[in-house]
Amino acid sequence: MMKKIKSALISVSDKSNLKPLLQILKKNKVKIISSGGTFKTIKRLKFDCSEVSDFTGFKEILGGRVKTLHPKIHAGILSKRNNKLHQNQLKNNKFENIDLVIVNFYPFEKTLEKTKKHEKILENIDIGGPAMVRASAKNYSDVTVITSIKQYPELIDQLKTNKGSTTLKFRKDMSLLAFGETAYYDSVISNYLNMDSKTYFPQKKIFYGNLIEKLRYGENPHQMSAIYSKNTNLKINKIHGKQLSYNNYNDIFSALAISKSLPKNIGTAIVKHANPCGVSILKNKLDSYKAALACDPTSAFGGIVSCNFKIDKKLALELNKIFLEVIVANGFEKNALKILKSKKNLRLIDASNFSQNEIFKFNSLNNSILIQSEDKKIFSKNDFKIVSKKKPTKIQFDNLIFAFNICRYVKSNAIVLVDNKTTVGIGSGQPSRLDSCQIAIDKMKKIRNLETEIVAASDAFFPFVDGIEKLVQAGVSAVVQPSGSINDKEVINFANATGTVLIFSKTRHFRH
Amino acid sequence: MMKKIKSALISVSDKSNLKPLLQILKKNKVKIISSGGTFKTIKRLKFDCSEVSDFTGFKEILGGRVKTLHPKIHAGILSKRNNKLHQNQLKNNKFENIDLVIVNFYPFEKTLEKTKKHEKILENIDIGGPAMVRASAKNYSDVTVITSIKQYPELIDQLKTNKGSTTLKFRKDMSLLAFGETAYYDSVISNYLNMDSKTYFPQKKIFYGNLIEKLRYGENPHQMSAIYSKNTNLKINKIHGKQLSYNNYNDIFSALAISKSLPKNIGTAIVKHANPCGVSILKNKLDSYKAALACDPTSAFGGIVSCNFKIDKKLALELNKIFLEVIVANGFEKNALKILKSKKNLRLIDASNFSQNEIFKFNSLNNSILIQSEDKKIFSKNDFKIVSKKKPTKIQFDNLIFAFNICRYVKSNAIVLVDNKTTVGIGSGQPSRLDSCQIAIDKMKKIRNLETEIVAASDAFFPFVDGIEKLVQAGVSAVVQPSGSINDKEVINFANATGTVLIFSKTRHFRH
Repeated sequence: MMKKIKSALISVSDKSNLKPLLQILKKNKVKIISSGGTFKTIKRLKFDCSEVSDFTGFKEILGGRVKTLHPKIHAGILSKRNNKLHQNQLKNNKFENIDLVIVNFYPFEKTLEKTKKHEKILENIDIGGPAMVRASAKNYSDVTVITSIKQYPELIDQLKTNKGSTTLKFRKDMSLLAFGETAYYDSVISNYLNMDSKTYFPQKKIFYGNLIEKLRYGENPHQMSAIYSKNTNLKINKIHGKQLSYNNYNDIFSALAISKSLPKNIGTAIVKHANPCGVSILKNKLDSYKAALACDPTSAFGGIVSCNFKIDKKLALELNKIFLEVIVANGFEKNALKILKSKKNLRLIDASNFSQNEIFKFNSLNNSILIQSEDKKIFSKNDFKIVSKKKPTKIQFDNLIFAFNICRYVKSNAIVLVDNKTTVGIGSGQPSRLDSCQIAIDKMKKIRNLETEIVAASDAFFPFVDGIEKLVQAGVSAVVQPSGSINDKEVINFANATGTVLIFSKTRHFRH
Repeated sequence: MMKKIKSALISVSDKSNLKPLLQILKKNKVKIISSGGTFKTIKRLKFDCSEVSDFTGFKEILGGRVKTLHPKIHAGILSKRNNKLHQNQLKNNKFENIDLVIVNFYPFEKTLEKTKKHEKILENIDIGGPAMVRASAKNYSDVTVITSIKQYPELIDQLKTNKGSTTLKFRKDMSLLAFGETAYYDSVISNYLNMDSKTYFPQKKIFYGNLIEKLRYGENPHQMSAIYSKNTNLKINKIHGKQLSYNNYNDIFSALAISKSLPKNIGTAIVKHANPCGVSILKNKLDSYKAALACDPTSAFGGIVSCNFKIDKKLALELNKIFLEVIVANGFEKNALKILKSKKNLRLIDASNFSQNEIFKFNSLNNSILIQSEDKKIFSKNDFKIVSKKKPTKIQFDNLIFAFNICRYVKSNAIVLVDNKTTVGIGSGQPSRLDSCQIAIDKMKKIRNLETEIVAASDAFFPFVDGIEKLVQAGVSAVVQPSGSINDKEVINFANATGTVLIFSKTRHFRH
């Protein structure tokens, strides 16, 4: 049902783009009520406007904390126009209907960016605004509520097309957005307060996100999908190529997690189906890519390459030799970009601005939500205990630490074989650890003869001797694994009997 | 800093447990203001109380829509006690401070359960309550806000211990909970409105949950963790055993998703690391468990068994033979329970009340959130196109459909081999499809000679002939796979050349 707009209350934090709106309101003889900064802006733009305090007859107090929290405002918003009793009560109180409410909040995230002072942050919590927005949104059958300057053009269009009225559909759409705004606003506040007091798992937990883009589909074409961010952007910048898909995003963030765990500006990770299939931290860019690729060239086909550095021309020429879905890097040199852009569909992502600042991760399983802190522990040599008679060389130890770090990003059960700062065999996603050992070994055997000393990392303990036995038989000389099995002793004995270096890490790296 | 409570505003939807609270307030000479049903309850309990309308001097209108949205209430809550200007303004307006606000909302989920009428649902949205709660929570340095009857004992304790005052810490804690309540309340409203209008991906999306339990740790011991639910419980009932861990929950919900996809009351699924390692839909309970176990007995060790039926004594005796972490079932017969309970740590879950009603699933990746509709499509024979010259027998076709369904729950790349309504080889979590084929075949060869006709399902297309070739060489007689590769034609030719049944499904089943 069409509703004529005769009066409007305007109270906006973002004061841009008001002019065309005020023009159409004036044209339709809409009475405008406002206060504070918005009032001043409207006056400066030379439009008529009453102050809220004149409208209510109540002078604002407490430095503006209380001005719109008044029955005349809220009855004007909440009254049902087709309810005679309501309309009589309004008349008796000398109240009048308010048909249009335009309120936008100062984004609470911006407050958090601007100050770390708790007092000041609290002072910024808007009480009157959300009350008006919620009241208007509830009563959308009669009232139009506008909560963002992005909605102005549509409102103007409504008023033009419908001669000063809005349609029920429009008011309902705006009501939806309004409750999205109030829910979001309080979610940000609630999360800030919880984090501030280190209440990580409150009774009621709210997760929120801003729509970044709707995706063509989810993991599969029959699934709808979208990507959201806690920020207003993803902090990764697509500079070339086709639209990113759900699986691309999933792989990109998996790849970036690996890259960010590597030494700064060093290292290449290749990811497929959210699992690494090759990682190398050789210092030379080209070497590191070639080595990462060599770990499992079959799997790299159609995969994602993530470079922890700026891509140069030489590497670009090499990257162009195989089919990749996405290349992620800390920037691209101009001539590298030119080469890579020759592939129309290849997605190029500049992740220079990406940082891993989120403490928690969560995922839903039907109606439940599992939340946990990220597996971000940085291990030092002190977290590792040498339990074998044979001690590792420095090279072995460095390779073991690298292998154990990569383990963290491989789906369990995970076995990672490393030589010369490069993975040479990755066994992933097996319900049996023994199978993961076999897969890692098979991969390794495809690409090399055992001329060097391979080290191995296991994401969790070996429940029996058979796993480590398989590795040692295949040429592995040093193994790192979390302890905790009832067979730990036997595993140590086996290491000693075979002259294998064995290191226990204090914790494990399951990932599913 | 301690704050003496001299006045309280009480407006509660849940009117239980008020008496002891009113007693302590009376003892401390706290002036009470209330309205509507709460006012009547307080009077019935024979305590003094002023009506809000007498307090404000404004008679409530619009059927109660506007009563507390009044400057006298909100200035009383929002004034800074240590700010002289604020206090003078209060005096000049004949206002007074309100030190304690007790408000709880009628749970919006309950409204949604009680009625499907949109009008009525909207009518239930509380405007005045959240405004008061938000104002009090903002001003917690002076005001105590109570938003749940669960907080009464602590409030009573505060008033007793501190002679009618509350501590700053308590008020801050309550403020945190208060913003949790308002954020949650609007999140439920916003999600209802979005779902009602089929707006699945709004600009601002809010996900919410109720804390079910804090977990000992996450996927690994160095990760904090908790589980939340959109409901007030998980709809699964642990009837025996140790506390459930993060990984248990992850596996349980993976297992239940499989079980719910099987024919009603039929079928056993064994899950490890969120991947199935054996599924059978043989009709006899014991047979189905034994067959599922036979698929990969090594992996089943320490796994989760999910039965789509009630567990009886015979099966219980069989289940007790190996080490399992969790058994999930649609109930347990009494004598079965007795047997299983002999293992102190074994977790037993009654999932009779579990239903998969959630349309969307989501997971976070650093600051981003990927959301997609669940992969729940039910396939019928019409979704499958026979593309080979050789046509499947009815048994083959049934096994192919079963295999393709199980594929959906196996991490990609997934290859599932089936014989006689039972998986006989599962290849999972490999970046290369060829490797998944090999793993599935290796598993199968461990347990059987090829006396029968095996069928295979692939979660996505074969990019080359090599995958299907490997399967056929291993004895596979019929294959289902989504089409879409540029080499589809070659794959069909290979099937025809080898007399293999080949079926194309219309869509794929990636899962990561």
